[in-house]
Amino acid sequence: MMTLKRHLLLISNSTLHGGGYLEHCQEHIQKFLGVQVKRVLFVPYALHDRDDYARTARQKFESLGYGLDSIHEAVDPVEAVQKSEAIFIGGGNTFRLLKALYDNGLIPAIRKRVFEDGIPYIGSSAGTNVATVSINTTNDMPIVYPPSLLALGLVAFNINPHYLDADVNSRHMGETREQRISQYHEEPDTPPVLGFREGCMLLVEGNKATLLGKTKARLFLRDKEPTEHEPGHDFSFLLDY
Amino acid sequence: MMTLKRHLLLISNSTLHGGGYLEHCQEHIQKFLGVQVKRVLFVPYALHDRDDYARTARQKFESLGYGLDSIHEAVDPVEAVQKSEAIFIGGGNTFRLLKALYDNGLIPAIRKRVFEDGIPYIGSSAGTNVATVSINTTNDMPIVYPPSLLALGLVAFNINPHYLDADVNSRHMGETREQRISQYHEEPDTPPVLGFREGCMLLVEGNKATLLGKTKARLFLRDKEPTEHEPGHDFSFLLDY
Repeated sequence: MMTLKRHLLLISNSTLHGGGYLEHCQEHIQKFLGVQVKRVLFVPYALHDRDDYARTARQKFESLGYGLDSIHEAVDPVEAVQKSEAIFIGGGNTFRLLKALYDNGLIPAIRKRVFEDGIPYIGSSAGTNVATVSINTTNDMPIVYPPSLLALGLVAFNINPHYLDADVNSRHMGETREQRISQYHEEPDTPPVLGFREGCMLLVEGNKATLLGKTKARLFLRDKEPTEHEPGHDFSFLLDY
Repeated sequence: MMTLKRHLLLISNSTLHGGGYLEHCQEHIQKFLGVQVKRVLFVPYALHDRDDYARTARQKFESLGYGLDSIHEAVDPVEAVQKSEAIFIGGGNTFRLLKALYDNGLIPAIRKRVFEDGIPYIGSSAGTNVATVSINTTNDMPIVYPPSLLALGLVAFNINPHYLDADVNSRHMGETREQRISQYHEEPDTPPVLGFREGCMLLVEGNKATLLGKTKARLFLRDKEPTEHEPGHDFSFLLDY
């Protein structure tokens, strides 16, 4: 197998209950970016108010010792990606985010930067969804219609961020998260889905993938029973599944 | 305003906690279909196992005094719609349902039958979603990619079935339903959204729309505060909004 340069940190969610923005994962972000990276290119497309979102992200990354440029302030977004040292795509609505990535011609540009040039990519929530094969397993409302559900394909599986266990006391009759993922796997040729409970993240370094964080992940494979995995688990086999 | 022949019964959900399939709305269904209708055409596309779904629906409708034909057993689905006396589209995954409606060329066929020929249309959950302008406010996972999110457009607004109030005790950080609908209304030219709590249904007779059922509905208009409405409320103004 060819060794890929890919460096990814895929986070389930930016904020944990009772904590601040990116607080639960800030040490992982620092360790991941290291001291080489000086500035991060932020993609705020998943929220409507991009200025406000960029302010929040800038404040956080500056407190961690990194400069932050927001792609929505760049004259040429593709060029901004080509010149970036590292990319962070934040959460919000996944459909809105993916549509903006397509509209701005960023899908091939980001793929090239990650796969060929090996710059670090951080995604949180919707930013994690778009890093996978497709956004077929997002929880978000389809408030806009992207030209495809296929996403960046930085890994060969899908992720369900904010994974929620069924609430046995609920009287609500909507499908549980597990039922929804299982409906996805009723469709032909669907890839594995990693259910990331809030607090989960996945570190991908080349062909090695490791679960980080404080919560377990739930793995769904087509025609198999779901399985539970502790932080530290090696998910490298999924990269080539 | 031209008077339309349209007769719709749009139900939030087929099953209430602790009840049987279509039990909470069966008297409304009988009153709506009346004694003229002998057979109902069922559309089971929202679930994977269409045979099983048709059995469940047939059993229920036969117990209410109606025959049921499932469209998936018809040689020509368009012809089945053209010959139908009444249509019932059941719940499941809204993306899968809408894609199958498009794949089988049924969007214009059903619109014609409802608007021009005035046959009764019953939708439940996903079947209610596809009766509206678009499926932009479904709760479902986008497990397949329909050629458009535009739906049957039998009414000029959208519905969010299984509407859920925010759980103030939750530690989960995913967006609340209200936040999701409000993100939809951040997009330009988006129509009103009726949040249907489980147990809600809307009866549309021509240009008159009335909320039925046991639970309140929550109305979301762009740039306005949401409002609460009791069963019996006249929503006719929304038909022309």
